[in-house]
Amino acid sequence: MAAAGSLQNLLKLGTKIVGVGRNYAAHAKELGNAVPKEPLLFLKPTSSYLENGGTIEVPHPLNSLDYEVELAVVIGKTARDVPENTAMNYVGGYALALDMTAREIQSVAKSAGLPWTVAKGQDTFTPISSVFSVSMVPNPDNLELWLKVDDEIRQKGSTKDMIFKIPYLISHISSIMTLFEGDTILTGTPQGVGPVKVGQKITAGITGLVDVCFDVGKRQKPGST
Amino acid sequence: MAAAGSLQNLLKLGTKIVGVGRNYAAHAKELGNAVPKEPLLFLKPTSSYLENGGTIEVPHPLNSLDYEVELAVVIGKTARDVPENTAMNYVGGYALALDMTAREIQSVAKSAGLPWTVAKGQDTFTPISSVFSVSMVPNPDNLELWLKVDDEIRQKGSTKDMIFKIPYLISHISSIMTLFEGDTILTGTPQGVGPVKVGQKITAGITGLVDVCFDVGKRQKPGST
Ligand SMILES: [Mg+2]
Ligand SMILES: [Mg+2]
Ligand SMILES: [Mg+2]
Repeated sequence: MAAAGSLQNLLKLGTKIVGVGRNYAAHAKELGNAVPKEPLLFLKPTSSYLENGGTIEVPHPLNSLDYEVELAVVIGKTARDVPENTAMNYVGGYALALDMTAREIQSVAKSAGLPWTVAKGQDTFTPISSVFSVSMVPNPDNLELWLKVDDEIRQKGSTKDMIFKIPYLISHISSIMTLFEGDTILTGTPQGVGPVKVGQKITAGITGLVDVCFDVGKRQKPGST
Repeated sequence: MAAAGSLQNLLKLGTKIVGVGRNYAAHAKELGNAVPKEPLLFLKPTSSYLENGGTIEVPHPLNSLDYEVELAVVIGKTARDVPENTAMNYVGGYALALDMTAREIQSVAKSAGLPWTVAKGQDTFTPISSVFSVSMVPNPDNLELWLKVDDEIRQKGSTKDMIFKIPYLISHISSIMTLFEGDTILTGTPQGVGPVKVGQKITAGITGLVDVCFDVGKRQKPGST
Protein backbone atom coordinates (compact mmCIF):
# COMPACT_ATOMS: atom_id res chain seq x y z
CA MET A 1 0.00 0.00 0.00
CA ALA A 2 1.43 3.37 -1.00
CA ALA A 3 2.16 5.85 1.79
CA ALA A 4 0.36 9.20 1.89
CA GLY A 5 3.35 11.07 0.43
CA SER A 6 3.68 8.83 -2.58
CA LEU A 7 -0.08 8.94 -3.08
CA GLN A 8 0.12 12.72 -3.48
CA ASN A 9 2.94 12.31 -5.99
CA LEU A 10 0.80 10.03 -8.12
CA LEU A 11 -1.01 12.91 -9.83
CA LYS A 12 2.34 14.60 -10.61
CA LEU A 13 3.50 11.45 -12.40
CA GLY A 14 0.39 11.31 -14.54
CA THR A 15 0.27 12.30 -18.18
CA LYS A 16 -3.43 12.28 -18.90
CA ILE A 17 -6.92 12.65 -17.58
CA VAL A 18 -9.48 10.49 -19.35
CA GLY A 19 -12.96 11.90 -18.98
CA VAL A 20 -16.05 9.73 -19.27
CA GLY A 21 -19.17 11.53 -20.45
CA ARG A 22 -22.80 10.64 -19.80
CA ASN A 23 -22.04 7.86 -17.34
CA TYR A 24 -25.12 8.54 -15.21
CA ALA A 25 -28.44 8.11 -17.01
CA ALA A 26 -30.12 10.98 -15.16
CA HIS A 27 -27.35 13.40 -16.18
CA ALA A 28 -27.36 12.29 -19.82
CA LYS A 29 -31.09 12.98 -19.83
CA GLU A 30 -30.85 16.43 -18.23
CA LEU A 31 -28.61 17.61 -21.10
CA GLY A 32 -30.89 15.99 -23.67
CA ASN A 33 -28.40 13.26 -24.59
CA ALA A 34 -28.97 9.57 -25.18
CA VAL A 35 -27.39 7.05 -22.82
CA PRO A 36 -24.28 5.81 -24.66
CA LYS A 37 -23.78 2.18 -25.69
CA GLU A 38 -20.10 2.35 -24.83
CA PRO A 39 -18.22 4.87 -22.68
CA LEU A 40 -17.94 8.31 -24.23
CA LEU A 41 -14.29 9.31 -23.77
CA PHE A 42 -12.47 12.62 -23.92
CA LEU A 43 -9.10 13.90 -22.73
CA LYS A 44 -8.21 16.72 -20.37
CA PRO A 45 -4.58 17.81 -19.91
CA THR A 46 -2.90 17.51 -16.52
CA SER A 47 -2.20 21.25 -16.80
CA SER A 48 -5.89 21.70 -15.93
CA TYR A 49 -5.47 20.36 -12.35
CA LEU A 50 -6.20 22.74 -9.48
CA GLU A 51 -5.38 21.84 -5.90
CA ASN A 52 -7.92 22.10 -3.09
CA GLY A 53 -8.34 25.71 -1.98
CA GLY A 54 -7.46 27.21 -5.37
CA THR A 55 -9.47 29.52 -7.57
CA ILE A 56 -11.26 28.24 -10.64
CA GLU A 57 -10.69 30.77 -13.41
CA VAL A 58 -13.51 31.70 -15.79
CA PRO A 59 -11.96 32.80 -19.09
CA HIS A 60 -13.00 35.95 -20.94
CA PRO A 61 -15.71 36.59 -22.16
CA LEU A 62 -17.59 33.98 -20.10
CA ASN A 63 -19.14 34.76 -16.72
CA SER A 64 -19.73 31.20 -15.59
CA LEU A 65 -18.65 27.61 -16.02
CA ASP A 66 -20.63 24.43 -15.44
CA TYR A 67 -19.59 22.25 -12.51
CA GLU A 68 -19.64 18.43 -12.65
CA VAL A 69 -18.70 16.54 -9.49
CA GLU A 70 -17.00 13.20 -10.22
CA LEU A 71 -15.15 10.32 -8.64
CA ALA A 72 -11.60 10.24 -10.00
CA VAL A 73 -9.88 6.86 -10.26
CA VAL A 74 -6.09 7.24 -10.07
CA ILE A 75 -4.15 4.54 -11.89
CA GLY A 76 -1.40 2.86 -9.85
CA LYS A 77 0.58 1.02 -12.52
CA THR A 78 0.77 0.67 -16.29
CA ALA A 79 -2.43 -0.83 -17.65
CA ARG A 80 -2.86 -2.15 -21.19
CA ASP A 81 -5.58 -4.56 -22.31
CA VAL A 82 -6.55 -5.27 -18.75
CA PRO A 83 -9.49 -7.67 -18.31
CA GLU A 84 -12.36 -6.55 -16.09
CA ASN A 85 -11.71 -9.24 -13.51
CA THR A 86 -8.24 -7.92 -12.64
CA ALA A 87 -8.87 -4.24 -13.39
CA MET A 88 -9.19 -3.17 -9.77
CA ASN A 89 -5.55 -4.19 -9.21
CA TYR A 90 -4.57 -1.19 -11.33
CA VAL A 91 -6.28 1.35 -9.08
CA GLY A 92 -3.70 3.28 -7.06
CA GLY A 93 -6.11 5.56 -5.26
CA TYR A 94 -9.17 7.75 -5.59
CA ALA A 95 -9.87 11.46 -5.51
CA LEU A 96 -12.78 13.82 -5.85
CA ALA A 97 -12.61 15.94 -8.99
CA LEU A 98 -14.65 18.60 -10.68
CA ASP A 99 -14.90 18.41 -14.45
CA MET A 100 -15.38 22.12 -15.11
CA THR A 101 -16.92 22.75 -18.50
CA ALA A 102 -17.47 25.89 -20.56
CA ARG A 103 -20.88 24.67 -21.71
CA GLU A 104 -21.35 27.41 -24.31
CA ILE A 105 -18.03 26.59 -25.95
CA GLN A 106 -18.88 22.88 -25.77
CA SER A 107 -22.28 23.45 -27.39
CA VAL A 108 -20.73 25.29 -30.33
CA ALA A 109 -18.09 22.55 -30.67
CA LYS A 110 -20.72 19.80 -30.56
CA SER A 111 -22.81 21.47 -33.25
CA ALA A 112 -19.74 21.85 -35.47
CA GLY A 113 -18.48 18.29 -34.88
CA LEU A 114 -15.35 19.65 -33.18
CA PRO A 115 -13.36 18.46 -30.16
CA TRP A 116 -14.21 19.55 -26.62
CA THR A 117 -10.62 20.48 -25.81
CA VAL A 118 -11.10 24.22 -25.27
CA ALA A 119 -14.41 23.66 -23.43
CA LYS A 120 -12.90 21.16 -20.97
CA GLY A 121 -9.12 21.58 -21.03
CA GLN A 122 -8.24 25.04 -19.76
CA ASP A 123 -6.04 25.64 -16.72
CA THR A 124 -7.98 25.25 -13.43
CA PHE A 125 -10.76 23.25 -15.16
CA THR A 126 -9.96 20.10 -13.14
CA PRO A 127 -10.07 20.97 -9.43
CA ILE A 128 -9.10 17.86 -7.49
CA SER A 129 -8.78 16.67 -3.91
CA SER A 130 -5.81 14.92 -2.39
CA VAL A 131 -5.57 11.27 -3.38
CA PHE A 132 -6.84 8.75 -0.84
CA SER A 133 -5.90 5.14 -0.68
CA VAL A 134 -7.81 2.16 -1.99
CA SER A 135 -8.00 0.80 1.56
CA MET A 136 -10.16 3.77 2.56
CA VAL A 137 -12.76 2.82 -0.05
CA PRO A 138 -14.13 -0.65 0.61
CA ASN A 139 -16.86 -0.15 -2.00
CA PRO A 140 -16.26 2.45 -4.73
CA ASP A 141 -19.66 1.55 -6.22
CA ASN A 142 -21.52 3.03 -3.30
CA LEU A 143 -20.08 6.48 -2.66
CA GLU A 144 -22.21 9.56 -2.18
CA LEU A 145 -20.98 12.54 -4.21
CA TRP A 146 -22.30 16.01 -3.41
CA LEU A 147 -21.69 19.57 -4.55
CA LYS A 148 -22.83 22.93 -3.24
CA VAL A 149 -22.67 26.38 -4.83
CA ASP A 150 -22.38 28.80 -1.92
CA ASP A 151 -24.74 27.17 0.59
CA GLU A 152 -27.10 25.55 -1.88
CA ILE A 153 -26.89 21.87 -2.64
CA ARG A 154 -26.82 21.34 -6.41
CA GLN A 155 -25.65 17.77 -6.93
CA LYS A 156 -26.12 14.70 -4.80
CA GLY A 157 -25.76 11.27 -6.28
CA SER A 158 -24.27 7.85 -5.78
CA THR A 159 -21.61 6.04 -7.76
CA LYS A 160 -24.00 3.08 -7.71
CA ASP A 161 -25.81 4.84 -10.55
CA MET A 162 -22.82 4.80 -12.88
CA ILE A 163 -23.76 3.09 -16.15
CA PHE A 164 -20.24 1.75 -16.76
CA LYS A 165 -18.55 0.64 -13.54
CA ILE A 166 -14.88 1.15 -12.69
CA PRO A 167 -13.56 -2.30 -13.78
CA TYR A 168 -15.30 -1.96 -17.12
CA LEU A 169 -13.96 1.58 -17.61
CA ILE A 170 -10.37 0.53 -16.87
CA SER A 171 -10.66 -2.50 -19.13
CA HIS A 172 -12.27 -0.54 -21.96
CA ILE A 173 -9.97 2.49 -21.82
CA SER A 174 -6.85 0.34 -21.52
CA SER A 175 -7.89 -1.47 -24.69
CA ILE A 176 -7.73 1.88 -26.51
CA MET A 177 -4.79 3.59 -24.83
CA THR A 178 -2.20 2.50 -22.29
CA LEU A 179 -2.88 3.97 -18.87
CA PHE A 180 0.21 5.00 -16.92
CA GLU A 181 0.84 5.38 -13.20
CA GLY A 182 -0.80 8.61 -12.09
CA ASP A 183 -3.20 8.90 -15.00
CA THR A 184 -6.77 9.51 -13.85
CA ILE A 185 -10.20 8.53 -15.06
CA LEU A 186 -13.03 10.96 -14.33
CA THR A 187 -15.95 8.61 -14.06
CA GLY A 188 -18.78 10.98 -14.96
CA THR A 189 -21.20 13.15 -13.05
CA PRO A 190 -24.64 12.57 -11.53
CA GLN A 191 -27.51 14.92 -12.36
CA GLY A 192 -27.76 18.51 -11.22
CA VAL A 193 -25.02 20.15 -13.27
CA GLY A 194 -25.34 23.85 -13.86
CA PRO A 195 -23.48 27.13 -13.90
CA VAL A 196 -21.32 28.63 -11.19
CA LYS A 197 -20.57 32.32 -11.53
CA VAL A 198 -17.56 34.49 -10.82
CA GLY A 199 -17.64 35.37 -7.11
CA GLN A 200 -19.38 32.18 -6.02
CA LYS A 201 -17.82 29.32 -4.10
CA ILE A 202 -18.00 25.57 -4.70
CA THR A 203 -17.79 23.01 -1.95
CA ALA A 204 -18.00 19.35 -2.83
CA GLY A 205 -17.21 16.02 -1.33
CA ILE A 206 -17.58 12.32 -0.98
CA THR A 207 -19.60 11.73 2.17
CA GLY A 208 -17.39 10.42 4.94
CA LEU A 209 -14.19 10.58 2.90
CA VAL A 210 -13.18 14.01 1.65
CA ASP A 211 -14.35 17.51 0.99
CA VAL A 212 -12.93 20.35 -1.06
CA CYS A 213 -13.55 24.06 -1.52
CA PHE A 214 -12.83 26.31 -4.51
CA ASP A 215 -13.46 29.96 -5.24
CA VAL A 216 -14.55 31.01 -8.69
CA GLY A 217 -12.85 34.08 -10.15
CA LYS A 218 -12.20 35.78 -13.44
CA ARG A 219 -9.19 34.59 -15.37
CA GLN A 220 -6.53 37.29 -15.20
CA LYS A 221 -4.66 37.36 -18.44
CA PRO A 222 -1.61 39.52 -18.98
CA GLY A 223 -1.86 41.91 -21.90
CA SER A 224 -4.87 42.16 -24.16
CA THR A 225 -6.51 39.35 -26.08
CA MET B 1 21.48 24.45 -26.50
CA ALA B 2 20.37 21.04 -25.28
CA ALA B 3 22.58 18.08 -26.07
CA ALA B 4 21.26 15.24 -28.21
CA GLY B 5 20.63 12.99 -25.18
CA SER B 6 18.51 15.53 -23.37
CA LEU B 7 16.66 16.31 -26.58
CA GLN B 8 15.55 12.69 -26.79
CA ASN B 9 14.42 12.84 -23.19
CA LEU B 10 12.19 15.81 -23.92
CA LEU B 11 9.36 13.68 -25.28
CA LYS B 12 9.51 11.43 -22.21
CA LEU B 13 9.01 14.46 -19.96
CA GLY B 14 5.97 15.61 -21.90
CA THR B 15 2.41 15.20 -20.70
CA LYS B 16 0.41 16.13 -23.75
CA ILE B 17 0.23 16.36 -27.49
CA VAL B 18 -1.83 19.27 -28.77
CA GLY B 19 -3.07 18.63 -32.27
CA VAL B 20 -3.98 21.45 -34.62
CA GLY B 21 -6.59 20.57 -37.22
CA ARG B 22 -7.15 22.15 -40.64
CA ASN B 23 -4.02 24.30 -40.54
CA TYR B 24 -3.37 24.02 -44.28
CA ALA B 25 -6.11 25.44 -46.50
CA ALA B 26 -5.70 22.76 -49.17
CA HIS B 27 -6.13 19.97 -46.61
CA ALA B 28 -9.18 21.59 -45.00
CA LYS B 29 -10.71 21.74 -48.46
CA GLU B 30 -9.92 18.12 -49.39
CA LEU B 31 -11.96 16.91 -46.39
CA GLY B 32 -14.76 19.35 -47.19
CA ASN B 33 -14.09 21.55 -44.16
CA ALA B 34 -14.03 25.33 -43.89
CA VAL B 35 -10.76 27.06 -43.03
CA PRO B 36 -11.01 27.83 -39.31
CA LYS B 37 -10.97 31.38 -37.90
CA GLU B 38 -8.87 30.26 -34.96
CA PRO B 39 -6.79 27.11 -34.50
CA LEU B 40 -8.84 23.96 -34.12
CA LEU B 41 -7.33 22.12 -31.17
CA PHE B 42 -7.52 18.54 -29.94
CA LEU B 43 -5.49 16.39 -27.56
CA LYS B 44 -3.65 13.13 -28.11
CA PRO B 45 -2.15 11.23 -25.19
CA THR B 46 1.60 10.64 -24.99
CA SER B 47 0.78 6.92 -24.79
CA SER B 48 0.13 7.17 -28.54
CA TYR B 49 3.79 7.84 -29.40
CA LEU B 50 5.58 5.29 -31.56
CA GLU B 51 9.34 5.45 -32.13
CA ASN B 52 10.88 5.36 -35.58
CA GLY B 53 10.93 1.81 -36.95
CA GLY B 54 7.88 0.68 -35.00
CA THR B 55 4.62 -0.79 -36.26
CA ILE B 56 1.48 1.29 -36.48
CA GLU B 57 -1.38 -0.88 -35.21
CA VAL B 58 -4.76 -0.81 -36.93
CA PRO B 59 -7.43 -1.74 -34.37
CA HIS B 60 -10.17 -4.25 -35.03
CA PRO B 61 -12.40 -4.10 -37.09
CA LEU B 62 -10.65 -1.48 -39.23
CA ASN B 63 -8.34 -2.38 -42.10
CA SER B 64 -6.74 1.01 -42.58
CA LEU B 65 -5.95 4.31 -40.89
CA ASP B 66 -5.43 7.72 -42.45
CA TYR B 67 -1.91 9.17 -42.37
CA GLU B 68 -1.24 12.87 -41.80
CA VAL B 69 2.39 14.04 -41.94
CA GLU B 70 3.08 16.99 -39.63
CA LEU B 71 5.84 19.13 -38.18
CA ALA B 72 5.92 18.62 -34.39
CA VAL B 73 7.06 21.53 -32.25
CA VAL B 74 8.53 20.31 -28.97
CA ILE B 75 8.19 22.74 -26.06
CA GLY B 76 11.42 23.45 -24.16
CA LYS B 77 10.12 25.19 -21.02
CA THR B 78 6.86 26.03 -19.30
CA ALA B 79 4.78 28.38 -21.43
CA ARG B 80 1.72 30.29 -20.20
CA ASP B 81 0.25 33.37 -21.85
CA VAL B 82 3.27 33.74 -24.06
CA PRO B 83 3.12 36.63 -26.53
CA GLU B 84 3.83 35.88 -30.18
CA ASN B 85 7.01 37.94 -30.25
CA THR B 86 8.77 35.77 -27.64
CA ALA B 87 7.03 32.48 -28.46
CA MET B 88 9.96 30.99 -30.36
CA ASN B 89 12.02 31.08 -27.14
CA TYR B 90 9.81 28.28 -25.84
CA VAL B 91 10.66 25.88 -28.66
CA GLY B 92 12.99 23.15 -27.41
CA GLY B 93 13.22 21.23 -30.67
CA TYR B 94 11.34 19.84 -33.61
CA ALA B 95 10.33 16.41 -34.82
CA LEU B 96 8.44 14.82 -37.65
CA ALA B 97 5.20 13.20 -36.56
CA LEU B 98 2.33 11.32 -38.11
CA ASP B 99 -1.13 12.12 -36.79
CA MET B 100 -2.72 8.74 -37.50
CA THR B 101 -6.48 8.97 -37.62
CA ALA B 102 -9.23 6.37 -37.75
CA ARG B 103 -11.24 8.45 -40.19
CA GLU B 104 -14.38 6.30 -39.98
CA ILE B 105 -14.47 6.61 -36.19
CA GLN B 106 -13.80 10.33 -36.48
CA SER B 107 -16.65 10.78 -38.99
CA VAL B 108 -19.13 9.09 -36.68
CA ALA B 109 -17.87 11.21 -33.76
CA LYS B 110 -18.13 14.42 -35.78
CA SER B 111 -21.70 13.67 -36.84
CA ALA B 112 -22.67 12.95 -33.24
CA GLY B 113 -20.87 16.01 -31.81
CA LEU B 114 -18.52 13.76 -29.87
CA PRO B 115 -14.78 14.02 -29.10
CA TRP B 116 -12.13 12.64 -31.45
CA THR B 117 -10.30 10.83 -28.66
CA VAL B 118 -10.80 7.26 -29.87
CA ALA B 119 -10.22 8.26 -33.51
CA LYS B 120 -6.90 9.98 -32.77
CA GLY B 121 -5.65 8.75 -29.39
CA GLN B 122 -4.95 5.03 -29.61
CA ASP B 123 -1.53 3.51 -28.93
CA THR B 124 0.82 3.85 -31.95
CA PHE B 125 -1.31 6.64 -33.47
CA THR B 126 1.50 9.20 -33.12
CA PRO B 127 4.62 7.84 -34.83
CA ILE B 128 7.42 10.35 -34.26
CA SER B 129 11.04 10.89 -35.25
CA SER B 130 13.88 11.71 -32.90
CA VAL B 131 13.89 15.33 -31.77
CA PHE B 132 16.27 17.67 -33.55
CA SER B 133 17.57 20.93 -32.25
CA VAL B 134 16.35 24.42 -33.01
CA SER B 135 19.78 25.25 -34.41
CA MET B 136 19.23 22.71 -37.19
CA VAL B 137 16.14 24.58 -38.35
CA PRO B 138 16.99 28.13 -39.35
CA ASN B 139 13.52 28.64 -40.85
CA PRO B 140 10.69 26.40 -39.60
CA ASP B 141 8.30 28.22 -41.93
CA ASN B 142 9.94 26.79 -45.01
CA LEU B 143 10.28 23.05 -44.46
CA GLU B 144 9.25 20.48 -47.03
CA LEU B 145 7.20 17.63 -45.54
CA TRP B 146 6.69 14.46 -47.55
CA LEU B 147 5.09 11.06 -47.06
CA LYS B 148 5.11 7.88 -49.12
CA VAL B 149 2.98 4.74 -48.84
CA ASP B 150 5.17 1.92 -50.09
CA ASP B 151 6.95 3.65 -52.98
CA GLU B 152 4.22 6.09 -53.89
CA ILE B 153 4.40 9.71 -52.88
CA ARG B 154 1.15 10.74 -51.21
CA GLN B 155 1.88 14.00 -49.43
CA LYS B 156 4.32 16.76 -50.25
CA GLY B 157 3.85 20.22 -48.83
CA SER B 158 5.61 23.11 -47.20
CA THR B 159 5.19 24.56 -43.74
CA LYS B 160 5.02 27.93 -45.49
CA ASP B 161 1.39 27.05 -46.23
CA MET B 162 0.40 26.76 -42.58
CA ILE B 163 -2.52 29.11 -41.87
CA PHE B 164 -1.49 29.69 -38.24
CA LYS B 165 2.29 29.94 -37.85
CA ILE B 166 4.28 28.51 -34.95
CA PRO B 167 4.54 31.69 -32.82
CA TYR B 168 0.81 32.24 -33.10
CA LEU B 169 0.08 28.61 -32.20
CA ILE B 170 2.29 28.72 -29.11
CA SER B 171 0.81 32.03 -28.02
CA HIS B 172 -2.77 30.90 -28.62
CA ILE B 173 -2.47 27.45 -27.06
CA SER B 174 -0.57 28.80 -24.04
CA SER B 175 -3.44 31.23 -23.43
CA ILE B 176 -5.76 28.22 -23.05
CA MET B 177 -3.53 25.69 -21.31
CA THR B 178 -0.05 25.79 -19.83
CA LEU B 179 2.46 24.03 -22.03
CA PHE B 180 5.13 22.06 -20.17
CA GLU B 181 8.63 21.02 -21.17
CA GLY B 182 8.33 18.12 -23.56
CA ASP B 183 4.76 18.79 -24.61
CA THR B 184 4.35 18.82 -28.38
CA ILE B 185 2.21 20.69 -30.85
CA LEU B 186 1.31 18.87 -34.06
CA THR B 187 1.01 21.76 -36.47
CA GLY B 188 -1.36 20.23 -39.01
CA THR B 189 -1.00 18.37 -42.28
CA PRO B 190 -0.76 19.47 -45.91
CA GLN B 191 -3.08 17.97 -48.52
CA GLY B 192 -2.93 14.40 -49.72
CA VAL B 193 -4.15 12.51 -46.67
CA GLY B 194 -5.60 9.09 -47.28
CA PRO B 195 -5.69 5.53 -46.04
CA VAL B 196 -2.79 3.21 -45.39
CA LYS B 197 -3.63 -0.48 -45.12
CA VAL B 198 -2.38 -3.33 -43.02
CA GLY B 199 0.78 -4.71 -44.69
CA GLN B 200 1.83 -1.40 -46.23
CA LYS B 201 4.77 0.73 -45.16
CA ILE B 202 4.98 4.47 -44.56
CA THR B 203 8.11 6.49 -45.09
CA ALA B 204 8.06 10.20 -44.39
CA GLY B 205 10.43 13.03 -43.78
CA ILE B 206 11.41 16.63 -43.73
CA THR B 207 13.65 17.17 -46.73
CA GLY B 208 17.27 17.54 -45.67
CA LEU B 209 16.55 16.97 -41.98
CA VAL B 210 15.05 13.63 -41.06
CA ASP B 211 13.22 10.62 -42.37
CA VAL B 212 11.29 7.85 -40.68
CA CYS B 213 9.82 4.48 -41.59
CA PHE B 214 6.89 2.59 -40.07
CA ASP B 215 5.19 -0.68 -40.87
CA VAL B 216 1.42 -0.95 -40.63
CA GLY B 217 0.05 -4.06 -38.95
CA LYS B 218 -3.06 -5.40 -37.29
CA ARG B 219 -3.45 -4.60 -33.63
CA GLN B 220 -2.92 -7.81 -31.68
CA LYS B 221 -5.21 -7.81 -28.71
CA PRO B 222 -5.09 -10.47 -26.05
CA GLY B 223 -8.38 -12.24 -25.48
CA SER B 224 -11.60 -11.46 -27.29
CA THR B 225 -13.24 -8.05 -27.62
MG1 LIG C 1 -17.81 15.20 -16.78
MG1 LIG D 1 5.33 13.15 -16.88
MG1 LIG E 1 -3.59 16.20 -38.02
